[in-house]
Amino acid sequence: MRARLTLEYTGTAFHGFQRQPNLLTVQGTLEAALYAFCGAQLTVHAAGRTDAGVHALGQVAHVDLPRPCAPQVVRGALNAYLRPHPLAVLAVEAVDADFHARFSAIARHYRYVIVNRPAPLTLAVGQAWHVPVALDHEAMQQAAQCLIGRHDFSTFRATYCQAASPIRTLDRLDVRREGDRLLIEASSRGFLHHQVRNMVGSLVQVGKGRWTVDDLKTALAARDRRAGGQTAPPEGLYFTQVDYP
Amino acid sequence: MRARLTLEYTGTAFHGFQRQPNLLTVQGTLEAALYAFCGAQLTVHAAGRTDAGVHALGQVAHVDLPRPCAPQVVRGALNAYLRPHPLAVLAVEAVDADFHARFSAIARHYRYVIVNRPAPLTLAVGQAWHVPVALDHEAMQQAAQCLIGRHDFSTFRATYCQAASPIRTLDRLDVRREGDRLLIEASSRGFLHHQVRNMVGSLVQVGKGRWTVDDLKTALAARDRRAGGQTAPPEGLYFTQVDYP
Repeated sequence: MRARLTLEYTGTAFHGFQRQPNLLTVQGTLEAALYAFCGAQLTVHAAGRTDAGVHALGQVAHVDLPRPCAPQVVRGALNAYLRPHPLAVLAVEAVDADFHARFSAIARHYRYVIVNRPAPLTLAVGQAWHVPVALDHEAMQQAAQCLIGRHDFSTFRATYCQAASPIRTLDRLDVRREGDRLLIEASSRGFLHHQVRNMVGSLVQVGKGRWTVDDLKTALAARDRRAGGQTAPPEGLYFTQVDYP
Repeated sequence: MRARLTLEYTGTAFHGFQRQPNLLTVQGTLEAALYAFCGAQLTVHAAGRTDAGVHALGQVAHVDLPRPCAPQVVRGALNAYLRPHPLAVLAVEAVDADFHARFSAIARHYRYVIVNRPAPLTLAVGQAWHVPVALDHEAMQQAAQCLIGRHDFSTFRATYCQAASPIRTLDRLDVRREGDRLLIEASSRGFLHHQVRNMVGSLVQVGKGRWTVDDLKTALAARDRRAGGQTAPPEGLYFTQVDYP
């Protein structure tokens, strides 16, 4: 039985998604829980391999269970075996054998959270990027719209990104303020490695008044990582949702 | 110079607000930072003494500084001395000598956060009450309205509460759902000890279908703590705002 799992986790508790020997990772922890549940070494496939520190509110993965099982039973058992790790299975659904968490996805949604105030973080430690200097979120929103559409995103791609092509189509990049929080919502069929964090780092340059909107356009056109702003820290990033047909 | 401080803190990191020997408390930590800043043993007065585990997003306190100082300088210095504790001074304002954080307050606002889903908490560990059984938030909202107004709240008062009178006027008690979160907003000029958490514990009885709206009315009328529901855990409670004339 192929099961689709919706996952939530605290990224700062793991060395990223991908299984690694002797390191606590999301995939390794989940596969250990699956082994405890059904006694088989199963491989989990995820919609996106989040980096260390990056959180998930709605990561999606699939796994082939050796025998059919009620989805609620799978969810309850996995959550019991996952304790005390901050990784929870929100939902389990039986899906067709041709469903693939990564390849069937038609859209991925991320949120980036900045706390923009002079005072340091308390409750949001490890869950947001603290930027003490006042940011002009309206300028950031205006600049973000230049990135929408189909572009060569080499400027915002990690130098070690392994994707075959730097061309992606960005469907949404919206910046809004809620009190002292800036929320940046990004949507695309697929992102390059570090793309959201690199775009956020550059938008913050605009928000600080160091870059104009045209500077961001120039950076995009350079197709060179060295033309981009800093990589925003991982702990502000949330993988919120994956869409399937 | 009397300074009004707006405070944010992670309640689970402290043994409550009130200074206690050999225990980390909000007041003790803040007074130690003030001592480091101005070399004097100063006493901080707060709008409300939050219990251990209860968070604050907008606690208000006042303190008399030995000499005038620019508010932004006070904020920056205190936040530097408060590290690495999850306690931040969001704002500092010079106020008249007759301002009193506790006695001048005309309204206090609290929020209670419940995560209502089968899966355990990850990012919200220590920041919400996890109730896995489905809650009927509409029934809870309906029941909450019975508590609005001026009543003897003995049913919802900690047995060791030291207030002279159990009579309080509850101005607001609203329950709403946002996805898997239930947010309960409570406002009053003043609350009894544990009043919000005890009201929430009883509303959850309604949400689970164990109590009817009339059962809640009966509990209120009993004026007896033994007639009330459980005390909701502290980590779901946030002291959000204090109003002054």
